[in-house]
Amino acid sequence: MKSAILCIGTEITTGLVRDLNAYFLAFHLTSVGLFPKFILFVPDHKETIGRALQFLFEDGEIQSLFITGGLGPTQDDLTREIVAEVLGKKLCFIPEQWEKIVRFYQKIRHTQPPENNRKQAFIPEGSILLENPLGTAPGFISDFQNKKIFVIPGVPKETEYFWPILKTHLPPNDNQFYRSEMVKICGVGESQFENELQPFLSSLPDTLQTAYLPYFGEVWFYLYSYQKNPQVIQYTENVIKKIKEVWKPYLFSQWGNTLEQACGALLMEKHLTIATAESCSGGLLSHRLTNVPGSSSYFYRGYVVYSNQAKIDTIGIPSSLLSQHGAVSEEVAQALAEGVRVKSGTDIGIGITGIAGPSGGSEQKPVGLVYIGISHSQHTQVKKYLFSGDREVIKIFSTQSALTQLFLELQRGIHNER
Amino acid sequence: MKSAILCIGTEITTGLVRDLNAYFLAFHLTSVGLFPKFILFVPDHKETIGRALQFLFEDGEIQSLFITGGLGPTQDDLTREIVAEVLGKKLCFIPEQWEKIVRFYQKIRHTQPPENNRKQAFIPEGSILLENPLGTAPGFISDFQNKKIFVIPGVPKETEYFWPILKTHLPPNDNQFYRSEMVKICGVGESQFENELQPFLSSLPDTLQTAYLPYFGEVWFYLYSYQKNPQVIQYTENVIKKIKEVWKPYLFSQWGNTLEQACGALLMEKHLTIATAESCSGGLLSHRLTNVPGSSSYFYRGYVVYSNQAKIDTIGIPSSLLSQHGAVSEEVAQALAEGVRVKSGTDIGIGITGIAGPSGGSEQKPVGLVYIGISHSQHTQVKKYLFSGDREVIKIFSTQSALTQLFLELQRGIHNER
Repeated sequence: MKSAILCIGTEITTGLVRDLNAYFLAFHLTSVGLFPKFILFVPDHKETIGRALQFLFEDGEIQSLFITGGLGPTQDDLTREIVAEVLGKKLCFIPEQWEKIVRFYQKIRHTQPPENNRKQAFIPEGSILLENPLGTAPGFISDFQNKKIFVIPGVPKETEYFWPILKTHLPPNDNQFYRSEMVKICGVGESQFENELQPFLSSLPDTLQTAYLPYFGEVWFYLYSYQKNPQVIQYTENVIKKIKEVWKPYLFSQWGNTLEQACGALLMEKHLTIATAESCSGGLLSHRLTNVPGSSSYFYRGYVVYSNQAKIDTIGIPSSLLSQHGAVSEEVAQALAEGVRVKSGTDIGIGITGIAGPSGGSEQKPVGLVYIGISHSQHTQVKKYLFSGDREVIKIFSTQSALTQLFLELQRGIHNER
Repeated sequence: MKSAILCIGTEITTGLVRDLNAYFLAFHLTSVGLFPKFILFVPDHKETIGRALQFLFEDGEIQSLFITGGLGPTQDDLTREIVAEVLGKKLCFIPEQWEKIVRFYQKIRHTQPPENNRKQAFIPEGSILLENPLGTAPGFISDFQNKKIFVIPGVPKETEYFWPILKTHLPPNDNQFYRSEMVKICGVGESQFENELQPFLSSLPDTLQTAYLPYFGEVWFYLYSYQKNPQVIQYTENVIKKIKEVWKPYLFSQWGNTLEQACGALLMEKHLTIATAESCSGGLLSHRLTNVPGSSSYFYRGYVVYSNQAKIDTIGIPSSLLSQHGAVSEEVAQALAEGVRVKSGTDIGIGITGIAGPSGGSEQKPVGLVYIGISHSQHTQVKKYLFSGDREVIKIFSTQSALTQLFLELQRGIHNER
């Protein structure tokens, strides 16, 4: 069963504000089996809103339509009027709603509401009014031919508030979106993974779909279906079993876990501790590691050694090493990783040094050159990378690669030797 | 002149991933006067993509159409084929593009590309190929009746990369969206700012619109108009002049600059240097400070002192202070700020200590309690905060507050005394 989302607001179509409502609704509608077929954004412009409504109303597959925005008290808020017009219904004044607006104003602003708030007390004839305790704009639900039309305010917090209420009014459906599986792997390219996986995906049931999503060196592989049936479940289980066998060292997540969460779980399981010494990544690695709740049990400390003096003072990098090889070198990455491990008394040390740009590059050492070292009692591994992108992208790729190296090393079996 | 944006990808319509491309394009298209009339998201589903293209092609007002996503090498990437079909053109193999993919693979992965990458070397007949140095999927530009069709990959960084190139191919137009102004202030609440600004906004011209957007303690205030005329310009100038007079110490940005960029600019202007000692924010502050190009000239180093031992070892916090007041205390924030300044030989030191949660809170010291100290040669200021939200939100608010304190202190006039 299909749904559609229509978000009304010039602030979105002009890029002033980034959408949250459609994102929220898309996720939750999918979860209850009402798959958004179209998500459409239009400016606060009468004819354009009308055209969008017409397009969505014409689509026979769409059985529920969610409209957000344009319910405010100002002149550019047109949703109420246009929806009523398209539905061929007149707007009715709801006295109780007006009293609520008056009370809301008195309570929050200690004044009477301005006269232009009055239009918020109107809804199309025959609609169900949805009370809004968070603001003055109520929502409403209308029927149109075989469709249910849900109209709610565009404030993200209010959309979130209304969702559980909307849910009780959804048309009954037997769909179950079967977010069969989503696995994330690191250290393997998207098309390499697809190529190697393809032979295992023969005779894919019709209703089961696959998707590959690259994410900064990770590959997210989805199996999903618009139907949940024994064949789909069985097939999914087989594919996941195969992935677990073949890509075990690279598989770091089933469902949403991040690479830092996967590393954290392994560090905790193995009772290992870690410290970081970052130059070009500027603290992003320690930020990511400490985003994980409970990380204080394994992450002891991080150094952001931006200047050469900081590298010398804090980790004890010999200045001769810096002058001989330069701060961005395999040798310094190794010394940072080993140094921070010893200095911090942790099992593992990570050292990152590179050139995030936009300036500071040379022919021998271009922007994007990054060395990453991982040190533990058994050995120290340094890898060289050449990333392209702007400063922030190079920082992200640096930490992605550091976490990938860490994950693969942990999978290979670093042991707690204490 | 109107444009439209079509984003293709089931990951968006199912709410797995939050859109960035349409947001980016909407902002930039608006800036050059190509107002998006529709922004449409569809899943990777052949008929649905076809239906969306038909809807947008039928609209006589839309003169340029921007399509992102679905250009990858995998089977669910359908954009290339469907666009060619709808345009009534056949796909042509571009040998130079295939050679580029081969070289890209050899350079990054040291292997030959898999055979399924070959489809990325095809574009519709008569299209202009847009080279993509960031990945294997090129973009292309096609003409269809009176419309220009721009097709680019769905990876947000690649969309950003392509924009300046697309710009050189845009149809000429005389529209001018007048984003009159956007100012950002910190250290003043949204409704306080709105209330105090209101008296200066009387007799707002009809075509000029205002918007307030709260962003983690910042307030972004917009003045914008679909028409650029002398009245709008004059009015805007007056309002901005007033804001600059009344909120000068809090105004950190006109147009997009971030708080860390504003702080960076002041540090550079005043020839001041800085170091950080972070506990609960876990490195996010140094990450943000080092996101600014050129920050290595003022940011010397950062310490992420997650464990008590790290606070003692690296900054020299007396263990008696920790046992007497606890790690999350005004005293420790002060000692961190002062200690890191002295230890690093910088003009300014920032110390952050708090409880990011979800665990670790108590009745006296709940989750969200954060102390932030800023130290310079003239004095050390510590502020206490109680944030609500999850771990990541508390980290963000901690760094927002630290940067706000820093900005306000720099505005008040910290001097370089060396």
